[in-house]
Amino acid sequence: MEPSHIGLGPGREFDLVRAMLARWHELARAIGDDAAVLDIPSGERLVVSTDASVEGVHFRREWLTLREFGYRATAAALSDLAAMAAAPRGMLIALTIPEASLAEVEELADGIGDAARITGTPIVGGDVTRGRQLAVTVTVLGSTASPTRRDAVAPGDIIYVTGVLGGPSAALRALEQGETLEPLVRERFARPRPRLQEAQWLAQHGVRALIDISDGLASELQHLAVASSVELRIDADRIPVMRGCSWSDAAHGGEEYELVVASAQSLDVDAFARAFALPLSEIGRARRTEIPAVIAHRAGSAERVDLGVGHDHFSS
Amino acid sequence: MEPSHIGLGPGREFDLVRAMLARWHELARAIGDDAAVLDIPSGERLVVSTDASVEGVHFRREWLTLREFGYRATAAALSDLAAMAAAPRGMLIALTIPEASLAEVEELADGIGDAARITGTPIVGGDVTRGRQLAVTVTVLGSTASPTRRDAVAPGDIIYVTGVLGGPSAALRALEQGETLEPLVRERFARPRPRLQEAQWLAQHGVRALIDISDGLASELQHLAVASSVELRIDADRIPVMRGCSWSDAAHGGEEYELVVASAQSLDVDAFARAFALPLSEIGRARRTEIPAVIAHRAGSAERVDLGVGHDHFSS
Repeated sequence: MEPSHIGLGPGREFDLVRAMLARWHELARAIGDDAAVLDIPSGERLVVSTDASVEGVHFRREWLTLREFGYRATAAALSDLAAMAAAPRGMLIALTIPEASLAEVEELADGIGDAARITGTPIVGGDVTRGRQLAVTVTVLGSTASPTRRDAVAPGDIIYVTGVLGGPSAALRALEQGETLEPLVRERFARPRPRLQEAQWLAQHGVRALIDISDGLASELQHLAVASSVELRIDADRIPVMRGCSWSDAAHGGEEYELVVASAQSLDVDAFARAFALPLSEIGRARRTEIPAVIAHRAGSAERVDLGVGHDHFSS
Repeated sequence: MEPSHIGLGPGREFDLVRAMLARWHELARAIGDDAAVLDIPSGERLVVSTDASVEGVHFRREWLTLREFGYRATAAALSDLAAMAAAPRGMLIALTIPEASLAEVEELADGIGDAARITGTPIVGGDVTRGRQLAVTVTVLGSTASPTRRDAVAPGDIIYVTGVLGGPSAALRALEQGETLEPLVRERFARPRPRLQEAQWLAQHGVRALIDISDGLASELQHLAVASSVELRIDADRIPVMRGCSWSDAAHGGEEYELVVASAQSLDVDAFARAFALPLSEIGRARRTEIPAVIAHRAGSAERVDLGVGHDHFSS
């Protein structure tokens, strides 16, 4: 789509929109009317989520380029579609920008475009407004016949996690101490991959319960346990830890965007690893319970490992 | 939905979400998983739009209560569904809030709830984040079998506008001068009604081209003319002006959220007025042209009226 064809009027805001559309080329579709029109495949349900990333809260310019910020804000939102095993159908980008150069807006747009391209998600609409703080609010639209849910873990389910954890947390700690990042750790921090295709594979292999790791593994396990009213018994030693990261980084670090999976059947972890060049690790089991809980043990030991969420048992 | 049932974890952000859900009661649905799941009626297309409202840019606390701000931000977004003649199916609310009291957040939530209730739109998801400036980004989801478009005006079409114009612009001018508003003018400014049902009525009566007035009538006419490659001949004296407002308020004032309509057939304006207690006024005609344009005349005069958009003719 050429920016000159979309019928926008004059003015600074529209100039910025035009500049972004020029960067996005064919990634931007259906833009130019009051709203975008999309078709959801017959028999599928619409899955939607919105996610705001704000400078100074989710992002510091000393740590990430604008392109990386744009990418991460978009990838974080798309990860919520992965948690529902939905195929991405489109996204809307609402930008709040302080007085910024055109080059800065283009850099941000390039990062958003990177995430759109990698995941095959068209950009179908948006809004640009002035503000004192840079913020990107991404609304993602996906579809699937059977969304996976966080309240669908059943007693007996095997718990898995994708990838290796700890990178983003270790990166954040190093950045706060002014250290330079290992390339692999930096990549995990700056360019997390929403696990969209992985989630669809898992759903096709019978998985009904999924959650993505935005707040940390321990916290997401809590969400699953509470939503599904089960106890999750985790083998602390089987949590996959990235080289150079601590166990605590892996158990508590947020913004991983890996998936926590509950499956009634044993999954073919080798087939998964071959398909996505990504490990799928069994880390525990769900059990029937009166009180939802997450309990971690060291292998072969009765000793509990504090997952550091303040308490093992909680009510909600 | 009870906030205690939604499986959110602890923390200040979740406390605010819980407080808002408590204010919204049954208006909030499908909240609690990573994303919301919605069903679009079979045979209908999904219509989506996102709209950000920022304190200090779209809103000043001296002028509007937080409840009015919440209402207006939501109504403005819903108006984009009206422009497509779509029925609202759901919305997502992304809030950026500075350190705010719970009472302030509740007031804002009540305004968002007012707009949801009046229009019958469920709140299906959202995000709350800290920020230096209060901002509400509303993403609206609607559906319709045949979306109306801004590029569907045909030569010969009759141009109509809903409502009476000028109120929001007159209100803004009075507020800037520290004056007290007439009750009716204040109501138009603080509580604009998205014309959702009106738009659906118009679409059912054969209208294929619609736009909502967010940037001012003159500007929206431009958008229609450019998108549809037509000349719009407007009878300046037939633009409906609210009592106490100037013609210029009506022609240029933004945030009206009334509709500009192009119809191949003459519409039954009396039936429309009876159905919605709202005037529908014929204001001009579309003509074939080489160069898209908006040209306004006084009735019976060949003299052009400058619509104040800088130029009559423009390319895009």
